[in-house]
Amino acid sequence: MDYNTFFFLIEFFGTIAFALSGALHAMEKKLDPFGVIIIAFVTSIGGGTLRDMLIGNTPVTWLQNGTMSITILCAAIGAFFLRKYLRMLSKTLFLFDSLGLGLFTVIGFEKGMQLNLSPGICIALGTITGCFGGVTRDVLLNNVPLIFHKEIYASACIIGGVAYYLMMLLGVNDLINTTIVIGIIVFIRVVAVRFKLRLPNFY
Amino acid sequence: MDYNTFFFLIEFFGTIAFALSGALHAMEKKLDPFGVIIIAFVTSIGGGTLRDMLIGNTPVTWLQNGTMSITILCAAIGAFFLRKYLRMLSKTLFLFDSLGLGLFTVIGFEKGMQLNLSPGICIALGTITGCFGGVTRDVLLNNVPLIFHKEIYASACIIGGVAYYLMMLLGVNDLINTTIVIGIIVFIRVVAVRFKLRLPNFY
Amino acid sequence: MDYNTFFFLIEFFGTIAFALSGALHAMEKKLDPFGVIIIAFVTSIGGGTLRDMLIGNTPVTWLQNGTMSITILCAAIGAFFLRKYLRMLSKTLFLFDSLGLGLFTVIGFEKGMQLNLSPGICIALGTITGCFGGVTRDVLLNNVPLIFHKEIYASACIIGGVAYYLMMLLGVNDLINTTIVIGIIVFIRVVAVRFKLRLPNFY
Repeated sequence: MDYNTFFFLIEFFGTIAFALSGALHAMEKKLDPFGVIIIAFVTSIGGGTLRDMLIGNTPVTWLQNGTMSITILCAAIGAFFLRKYLRMLSKTLFLFDSLGLGLFTVIGFEKGMQLNLSPGICIALGTITGCFGGVTRDVLLNNVPLIFHKEIYASACIIGGVAYYLMMLLGVNDLINTTIVIGIIVFIRVVAVRFKLRLPNFY
Repeated sequence: MDYNTFFFLIEFFGTIAFALSGALHAMEKKLDPFGVIIIAFVTSIGGGTLRDMLIGNTPVTWLQNGTMSITILCAAIGAFFLRKYLRMLSKTLFLFDSLGLGLFTVIGFEKGMQLNLSPGICIALGTITGCFGGVTRDVLLNNVPLIFHKEIYASACIIGGVAYYLMMLLGVNDLINTTIVIGIIVFIRVVAVRFKLRLPNFY
Repeated sequence: MDYNTFFFLIEFFGTIAFALSGALHAMEKKLDPFGVIIIAFVTSIGGGTLRDMLIGNTPVTWLQNGTMSITILCAAIGAFFLRKYLRMLSKTLFLFDSLGLGLFTVIGFEKGMQLNLSPGICIALGTITGCFGGVTRDVLLNNVPLIFHKEIYASACIIGGVAYYLMMLLGVNDLINTTIVIGIIVFIRVVAVRFKLRLPNFY
């Protein structure tokens, strides 16, 4: 398996995991099938869409490539019919979600770099790419976004972004760098959820 | 009456109907007059604005044409003073809203076609143009968007979009095609509301 | 002190005031530190970001200039540690917020003018620049946006925008014009809050 296939597969499964996560949240709120599809869609493409609109990369990515939309559509429909079984797969879903989060963060960072934006801004773009889909999902479902008060999620993207930047400065090969950063983000997520870590809130 | 006048009138009354729908929702939540105007505005131009930002058609349409803003402003002010009478006009408003929904869907589809986007994506753009204004209205008013759990609304846009594409393949004249698609969407909406149809939700 | 320094200082303190306002709202909802930073950020840059996306000025302003992000980050962290003292500074904060609101309104208006958009649209862009950050803050925190039902806020921007346009027609120097408009907006805000003025709502 070569590198391109490797990253394609991570993005593919990451997209599906984000879509399933959206669909599951939507079904908890008893939305109709169309609502479930839309929330799945928004969760998957929300981050990349905001990033593309912010940097002026239009038409935004998902408009240029129908494959992604079809993947999400199938994932949402699948989630709908298999909802009873998805709960048993929650660990697998969590793993894909974390893998996708890692890759999306790197993609966002890279897009910023291509425009010669400053490193801090690139880290912000990576974090937006990884997290904004979930934020939009929560806003549409009328919840305060999860990432603002639960577990360590966006912080993992930020740490991953910083690590990516440092390794880039050290001249680490892009593919190796990406793999390591995805590993870091998955690791942080696993540890955070396993030990129920949150950011301290001092109130 | 020639075709251009015909479509201008539909867009004109569609915009007004969307603005009135926004204003009525805002008044139900007891917003102040400024809030009523903003919600009217967002409901009317929200769908086209998101579409334009997604495809990079900037400055977005409503910025380029003050007429639309003035129309919406007058509609919102009118809604405010005539709110007692609007309820008696609910059937007329519903008709305009459905006509507008149909036309906005076609406009969104066409904008996608002009950029050579794939048919499925064009249908998505049509649906976004028709529906996103109402979604933003509901988010700003702190409701779960209506279209996610009530009646058949976005589904009508999708069916209309598919029909438009099929007739386009068959070489049907644009104007006739548009008229038929608007008819289909109005028909679906009327039937859905008359018989209280919803998408099944299986919970 | 020359004019440029004067306006730089107003924008600087306005940005900080908006960031602090966001952070305080976020802490009231007991968000974690990351959530507080994000809400501070969104409140500060939300208005300018939507304006830039609407007019196609991309990458949007804050992506091009890391200084603003660092300022906001410091303000949010400061708000977090000094939250007990911020309440005593509420009048100072209110003043900065009003100064920022005034300047942001003028900046938005000017950006529209540079694109030869019509005056009404420029006033709308000014109002969006001044107000949308607070709207996004409220949506993310799951509140009905404050400006839709409390005090005179957006109306101050609109009046300021109209005044700016009229003085522009009269050939008033940009810097003097800006200063006067900021003064008008601050005055309206002070009077509105002092006398608890609201728009009438007639319900």
